[in-house]
Amino acid sequence: MSTEQPPVAAAAIQELSHMSERTVFFLSDQTGVTAETLGHSLLTQFDGRHFRQVTLPFIDTVDKAHEAVRKINSAAESAALRPIVFSTLVQDDFRAIVRNSDGLHLDIFDVFLEPLENELKQKSTHTAGRAHGMSDIESYMKRIEATNFALANDDGAITRNYEMADVILVGVSRSGKTPTCLYLALQYGVYAANFPLTDEEFDSGTLPEILVSQKSKLFGLTIAPTRLQQIRKERRALGRYATAQQVRFELREADKIFRKYGIPHVDTTEFSIEEIASRILDSTGVERRVRP
Amino acid sequence: MSTEQPPVAAAAIQELSHMSERTVFFLSDQTGVTAETLGHSLLTQFDGRHFRQVTLPFIDTVDKAHEAVRKINSAAESAALRPIVFSTLVQDDFRAIVRNSDGLHLDIFDVFLEPLENELKQKSTHTAGRAHGMSDIESYMKRIEATNFALANDDGAITRNYEMADVILVGVSRSGKTPTCLYLALQYGVYAANFPLTDEEFDSGTLPEILVSQKSKLFGLTIAPTRLQQIRKERRALGRYATAQQVRFELREADKIFRKYGIPHVDTTEFSIEEIASRILDSTGVERRVRP
Repeated sequence: MSTEQPPVAAAAIQELSHMSERTVFFLSDQTGVTAETLGHSLLTQFDGRHFRQVTLPFIDTVDKAHEAVRKINSAAESAALRPIVFSTLVQDDFRAIVRNSDGLHLDIFDVFLEPLENELKQKSTHTAGRAHGMSDIESYMKRIEATNFALANDDGAITRNYEMADVILVGVSRSGKTPTCLYLALQYGVYAANFPLTDEEFDSGTLPEILVSQKSKLFGLTIAPTRLQQIRKERRALGRYATAQQVRFELREADKIFRKYGIPHVDTTEFSIEEIASRILDSTGVERRVRP
Repeated sequence: MSTEQPPVAAAAIQELSHMSERTVFFLSDQTGVTAETLGHSLLTQFDGRHFRQVTLPFIDTVDKAHEAVRKINSAAESAALRPIVFSTLVQDDFRAIVRNSDGLHLDIFDVFLEPLENELKQKSTHTAGRAHGMSDIESYMKRIEATNFALANDDGAITRNYEMADVILVGVSRSGKTPTCLYLALQYGVYAANFPLTDEEFDSGTLPEILVSQKSKLFGLTIAPTRLQQIRKERRALGRYATAQQVRFELREADKIFRKYGIPHVDTTEFSIEEIASRILDSTGVERRVRP
């Protein structure tokens, strides 16, 4: 007898695992970013759960609303557990269609629009696609320009534009500088440059004059040695770069520099990119040029 | 007499403009990203309004909760209009403190947690900082790796990694390829490369063999000529690059290539980065590797 499962049994097992899995839908007449963000914040409050996640964006016709209902109902039929639907549909007629699906329907406009209308003494426009939309070409340009700034001023390649920077991140290689700068640019239009701390700074124990002259903009990133070693190994396993000794040496020297110049810094080990970015803005007081 | 306003009058005018402005607070025990996203989606439904926006993140102690209340109440006192407070505080005790401020209090956990607890037959953890937190080191690494991939495979510099790409964006210079690739990487962990269409492709009317071999991954970006001209002028005002004739020529030739190879494409003129990214995922069916 073969040790492999017969195909019928395998299919049955897959069916069972699918049946016990709950599907979460993110519905939007737009990108779905708001529904995903809202839903994710709420679902992370329930430990040990796994959800199949489906985003249905750009529901901007009656047909698409009915199609979304079919998908939700199909998921409801094939699983023992009712789907959960996070919805950010603005238009009443589409919302009315989707509300009749077989899922648990949670819609931010259902709940929050009325108190806001009362407070602002103004009817809402009920127009689709305003958030994360091209409502503001100026915002788009600011984000693009900030992204170009981050790319051009990455990794200390160029230092002559530091006058224009809102913030300059410093830290050892692979401490998270580049993704954080790009996130600050894309999300908030903030001009973020970064400068890597290397042997040159460690040997002298000082920062280059150009950085000292912009000291108020400096913000340091640090990270636990074991974590940094792990990250560096994935990049370049061989040589001194990813050894425990080297990683510890660099982080210790970077810390000395942070303390010498009084540079505020954050340990990125336990943080997501969003958290690092938020802590930098919170700590430095740098203004968001754009709000997504 | 000086033409400048006397300081007292200037201060009074500033006071008046401040009084008529409504402040919106985004409160969070975490980054504030969810509160900002939710609030922004709702507020864009009210036309012609301008709000002063203040994010108060990392409210994770009783003291910080009281400090937030002081800031809200101070804004309430100095303006004729009550502040609006979008809150995503998970812990009941902090939420109770903040709810007593003089603002209009809108909290997603107040509204949605109970129906979710009932549906999932599970109490929520009420633990701060789970969304956008480092709950998942694997997710963090995926986003970082995807960002590194986007940077390494930007602008057609390297084409040998296209096997690993989830999607390869093609389009003329400044059509939005780079920011979109970076956004797809940071937000969703998607591996996005991009290749610029230039004279080489326009002269031959064909794509390089390496792109043809990955045809199913190609996605085109196009843009209105006037808008592209405006963007290019800000980058390099002189020379052929930003002339109406050149811009029209390139866009026309790019469109021929899209049609010749049957490449799906989107016009980015009216779209934000989020919209472009969502439309690419929606159109190609590329799976999000990470959900923020």
